[in-house]
Amino acid sequence: MTPTPRIVSGMRPTGPLHLGHYFGVLKQWLELQSTHHCYFFVADWHALTSEYHDPLRIRGFVPELVMDWVAAGLDPARCTIFQQSMVPEHVELHLVLSMITPTSWLERNPTYKDQLQQLAEKDLTTYGFLGYPVLQAADILLYKPQAVPVGQDQLPHLELTREIARRFNFLYGETFPEPQALLTPAAKCPGLDGRKMSKSYGNSIYLREDFVDVRSKVMQMLTDANRKRKTDPGDPNICNLFPYHVLMTGAEDQAAIRDACVKAEIGCVDCKKKLIESMEAFLTPLHERRRHLVEHPEEAWDILERGSAVAREEAQRTQDEVRRHINFLGR
Amino acid sequence: MTPTPRIVSGMRPTGPLHLGHYFGVLKQWLELQSTHHCYFFVADWHALTSEYHDPLRIRGFVPELVMDWVAAGLDPARCTIFQQSMVPEHVELHLVLSMITPTSWLERNPTYKDQLQQLAEKDLTTYGFLGYPVLQAADILLYKPQAVPVGQDQLPHLELTREIARRFNFLYGETFPEPQALLTPAAKCPGLDGRKMSKSYGNSIYLREDFVDVRSKVMQMLTDANRKRKTDPGDPNICNLFPYHVLMTGAEDQAAIRDACVKAEIGCVDCKKKLIESMEAFLTPLHERRRHLVEHPEEAWDILERGSAVAREEAQRTQDEVRRHINFLGR
Ligand code: SF4
Ligand code: SF4
Repeated sequence: MTPTPRIVSGMRPTGPLHLGHYFGVLKQWLELQSTHHCYFFVADWHALTSEYHDPLRIRGFVPELVMDWVAAGLDPARCTIFQQSMVPEHVELHLVLSMITPTSWLERNPTYKDQLQQLAEKDLTTYGFLGYPVLQAADILLYKPQAVPVGQDQLPHLELTREIARRFNFLYGETFPEPQALLTPAAKCPGLDGRKMSKSYGNSIYLREDFVDVRSKVMQMLTDANRKRKTDPGDPNICNLFPYHVLMTGAEDQAAIRDACVKAEIGCVDCKKKLIESMEAFLTPLHERRRHLVEHPEEAWDILERGSAVAREEAQRTQDEVRRHINFLGR
Repeated sequence: MTPTPRIVSGMRPTGPLHLGHYFGVLKQWLELQSTHHCYFFVADWHALTSEYHDPLRIRGFVPELVMDWVAAGLDPARCTIFQQSMVPEHVELHLVLSMITPTSWLERNPTYKDQLQQLAEKDLTTYGFLGYPVLQAADILLYKPQAVPVGQDQLPHLELTREIARRFNFLYGETFPEPQALLTPAAKCPGLDGRKMSKSYGNSIYLREDFVDVRSKVMQMLTDANRKRKTDPGDPNICNLFPYHVLMTGAEDQAAIRDACVKAEIGCVDCKKKLIESMEAFLTPLHERRRHLVEHPEEAWDILERGSAVAREEAQRTQDEVRRHINFLGR
């Protein structure tokens, strides 16, 4: 019998999760729970990298992120949910890996220069930001996962983790298996305006969003701009709204809406009302699970503390091995 | 009553200490024991920065360094002697400081480029080597010292520590006093060949050196090259040997030797024999203290473990404060 393969993944606690996170990442995490040993962590040190100028809000988002995860269906009994800064082995392995990672590997990292430009107002020309992928390598390698779920755009980061693992193994002997990429199918949940869904664009629907706000956001959406009046046929392929039906409306209703739209048999207002129904049906179980957590805020911390203790055992085992390999053993 | 001021300083465990270390650094440390609260640490993480390609020997040098220190006169009852890697707060503060330190501060660090060139064969173009001064800042700031004993050449590093402290205080509120430089008087103990005393030049006399070897090394020294025969007058100011008389021979004898040399009343062989006497008198108490430690090797580790526990209490206090300032507090 082959042992259950292990995966590791994390998110930065920098705000509430929206539908883009759900369909882009969380949905796959939910499936992985039944096939893998999953380590999911709140990457608070990583959040500090970009929020160092104003870190006070990070802590509030830590339990919020756990609430979003559990509301979405992550089950702390089936996966290990933990907080990066509660497992001190992350910072120690980060330091060890920093000694063997050439700066040139970091400077040529394509996301490095992109982000420097995109987030120019945050002044990310720091040593810690340059070393972001080194910390990420430590986060992953500590748990020796067989795979890491990643989007296409994160492949260079994972490749860097694999290179760092190879270099460690070459210098000190076989220690870290090279984690494989477990590619996330390209996320198909655009923002309300058709761009990428992102907090900074103000085009998001949050997993915790009140239905009053869901309705008002959907009703205000722009649809097919060529459809001036109800009697004009619409085109679901260019409408901002239709992708949400694809994600949240049952297959049969979805086909009916598409058909009615191109035949001008349904108006956009009615189409929006149907979408609101679908969204509410989708969000209701999430809100119910979340309500329980909001009423028992200690539970999110309990989950993190229990999970961090489990993760720490694993991390200590690896870090003991790392220290043995570099002969850092004390007496 | 003003409280006793505190200092922090460390050495890398990369080999046995020689007379250059003694007169350049240790002698001042011995004096500081009576006037300051001293934290002296074995900088094993720093040793890994340059020895990462072959770290196995670092561990052996850790207790050796403590033996050299105690043999030289450091008293574990009067100062805190500890091991960097035994106090995990160093790696955590290092990560926090890395987030706020601009890479440009590190790249413009004058010793950075010098060392890259000098140690070209070691391939130090690593992320960890670039961040050496960040780890150094963490080492120092954790103990909030009023001062740091430094040589002239280390002033830029200390200035970087002060800049990082200022930046932390600016971003998160007053936390770290800026440590002052406590300048070490320029070391005047050249190597046996007149160059800087250094293990890699093979021109050193080690604190633990056997007298047989001390004698043979001194007898082989080149003296004033212009003094072809015993009847030629010598010049102590250009002789490789005389600086050692200045350091280890009593003032009266020293003056007599100088006088006899310029008057050609003493031959270089006799002068060397006198120096051997002085060196043996200097080294004898060091060797005696060391013999005890070599016979009780557990004592060096006891010193490190006790000292690290003391240092850790202090380091935890600071790191709790740092976490409070950046609001990284767990539940
Ligand atoms: S009917 Fe629906 S799918 Fe068609 S254009 Fe209007 S909102 Fe879009
Ligand atoms: S007598 Fe002594 S000081 Fe003078 S040249 Fe010889 S070794 Fe040097």
